[in-house]
Amino acid sequence: TARNLFLLPGDGIGPEAMGEVRKIIAYMNEAMNAGFVTDEGLVGGCAYDAHGAAISEADMQKALAADAVLFGAVGGPKWDSVPYEVRPEAGLLRLRKDLQLFANLRPAICYPALAAASSLKPELVEGLDILIIRELTGGVYFGEPKEIIDLGNGQKRGIDTQVYDTYEIERIAGVAFEMARTRQNRVCSMEKRNVMKSGVLWNQVVTETHKAKYSDVQLEHMLADAGGMQLVRQPKQFDVIVTDNLFGDMLSDVAAMLTGSLGMLPSASLGAPDGKTGKRKALYEPVHGSAPDIAGKGIANPIAMIASFAMCLRYSFNLVKEADDLEKAIANVLDKGVRTGDIMADGARQVGTVEMGDAILAEFKTL
Amino acid sequence: TARNLFLLPGDGIGPEAMGEVRKIIAYMNEAMNAGFVTDEGLVGGCAYDAHGAAISEADMQKALAADAVLFGAVGGPKWDSVPYEVRPEAGLLRLRKDLQLFANLRPAICYPALAAASSLKPELVEGLDILIIRELTGGVYFGEPKEIIDLGNGQKRGIDTQVYDTYEIERIAGVAFEMARTRQNRVCSMEKRNVMKSGVLWNQVVTETHKAKYSDVQLEHMLADAGGMQLVRQPKQFDVIVTDNLFGDMLSDVAAMLTGSLGMLPSASLGAPDGKTGKRKALYEPVHGSAPDIAGKGIANPIAMIASFAMCLRYSFNLVKEADDLEKAIANVLDKGVRTGDIMADGARQVGTVEMGDAILAEFKTL
Ligand SMILES: CC(C)[C@H](C(=O)O)[C@@H](O)C(=O)O
Ligand SMILES: CC(C)[C@H](C(=O)O)[C@@H](O)C(=O)O
Repeated sequence: TARNLFLLPGDGIGPEAMGEVRKIIAYMNEAMNAGFVTDEGLVGGCAYDAHGAAISEADMQKALAADAVLFGAVGGPKWDSVPYEVRPEAGLLRLRKDLQLFANLRPAICYPALAAASSLKPELVEGLDILIIRELTGGVYFGEPKEIIDLGNGQKRGIDTQVYDTYEIERIAGVAFEMARTRQNRVCSMEKRNVMKSGVLWNQVVTETHKAKYSDVQLEHMLADAGGMQLVRQPKQFDVIVTDNLFGDMLSDVAAMLTGSLGMLPSASLGAPDGKTGKRKALYEPVHGSAPDIAGKGIANPIAMIASFAMCLRYSFNLVKEADDLEKAIANVLDKGVRTGDIMADGARQVGTVEMGDAILAEFKTL
Repeated sequence: TARNLFLLPGDGIGPEAMGEVRKIIAYMNEAMNAGFVTDEGLVGGCAYDAHGAAISEADMQKALAADAVLFGAVGGPKWDSVPYEVRPEAGLLRLRKDLQLFANLRPAICYPALAAASSLKPELVEGLDILIIRELTGGVYFGEPKEIIDLGNGQKRGIDTQVYDTYEIERIAGVAFEMARTRQNRVCSMEKRNVMKSGVLWNQVVTETHKAKYSDVQLEHMLADAGGMQLVRQPKQFDVIVTDNLFGDMLSDVAAMLTGSLGMLPSASLGAPDGKTGKRKALYEPVHGSAPDIAGKGIANPIAMIASFAMCLRYSFNLVKEADDLEKAIANVLDKGVRTGDIMADGARQVGTVEMGDAILAEFKTL
């Protein structure tokens, strides 16, 4: 049976990075009979340019119908002043919301070959392997009211609303506990219960979910500001971190930067398993952005996009061996000293986007 | 004329740290005729134990009447399950709100003697000197509705509301630009305008305020998540950072941790200058918390509290020379290798809270 992938390369370096994934898909179809069928659409600034929206209805339908969506990156200075409703990010937010991708998995791992690139002391990040589980369809990103009101007298009021319901917290906590069981069995939940009512509820529901179904997992609670501090101070203390949409945005970016491997980090955004088929909607995207300053130059690092495809193999198609091999191929190529400019180091060999993709594919073929 | 100080030592290590400031006050009265008159109250868990509220009405009145409030720290496991309305933090939040202390100044400086204590590579933090200006009386901390609703069926809904009005953004931006002029003349404003309407307004108002009154200052905008990353990657790129209450909470904690000097960092929370007298309400507090695990052992680091008093000398009483000297005394004592346990290093001499206070006072006397 066909495996349907919908590709949304987006803006900036997105298309270049996606090109390297395409090669891997083609190889897997040819040599492994993987049966991937791909279609492609527009998202972000390029979609706005083409039809005035950050993603078209037709492409939304294709995203909804696909087994998995591969997403590049969106945005750039060209679209800095387009109306709020059609800004590039709106395409990504709509995909997350309409596909109900409530669980965002962001591994923050430190590739051994890159520990020196971290701004932290190497001993603090060597071997680092954190999984941040960020709630992705709730909180202040989507709560209403969300508006700017004109109060007269030259005064305006900007309003956003943070909203979390019990079931939303329960299901994301469940994902965190399940993931922890496949790892070091430890979860740290972060919120600001000392100032936010949604934080109070978050804390309660995580605690109850733990007690009811996952008491074998070790659970800790931390205030989100203290969590940010601890990530910088002693990141290896964490296994799985579960937190809300906005704190997850901040904390996962800090965690990503710690690893020195920002250009290498993938993410998966998952929906709930379908009651009948067990299938879950999913979108895979690199953590880095569209990097407009280096777009089109052939120098972008495609590793995060390729590693996102590895997550896709694992979570959408249960191709565990293939996912492991692809991740191993990335690590091996780094070990051999092949580097794009962003992760260049003394004595390494600097390559462009295409060469990096080729090197990873070549390595993948040997595994 | 008398200088009225209201002391709120609070919980945990707060009282111990405050004790060392008291010695400096006594010395300044005696030797410098400084004319400080002090009164003292309860805040946080100890206030709850004494009269069931995180701060009493009588103490609120005293805080309102004082020229400046010196605040220690609040909270501890003992009060983890007291009702939300009277939790220790409520005392601090009420002080901020009722005294209208909208401008929170959080310097993140790296004491040269402590650069090695940072988890970042020393070359990234040596000489670091960032001033974070955090809006302190608005945003999600105080916006309404702020509640947990029972939806029935075992479902609850936690709601918090982020609200910012034009005038609130204008006045905090003004503080940031004014401060920048006394430093490197650069401001970086952080928000999430790509997902929050309050962020859109924030961005607009900061831009307009800059254009109207502070175009001599260099202004940059950064998304708050990218800002967190950049703080970790290259903290010295920043001079003044201005941001909202919640982002300020997160980002200032990350910045504090970068310095390796967390136990040393002070903060000032200021109101608007009075139209007639020019006086502004003010509260000074260390960035660290109540550290209940080491409370009462005589080992807490009093430097952040003493440095907060130095900010008080500077901002509430315009005692600039005295503030400079007190800060210099701290740096000198550190240079001499005197250390509390939290900042202990090879070859240094480990001391307790009182000895550290004595050493700083002795040094202060020589300047
Ligand atoms: C592009 C933006 C809307 C997005 C977010 O804020 O969620 C990004 O920062 C991310 O973390 O995926
Ligand atoms: C104690 C708490 C309410 C407070 C806050 O969140 O503002 C603290 O974290 C701070 O940064 O001063």
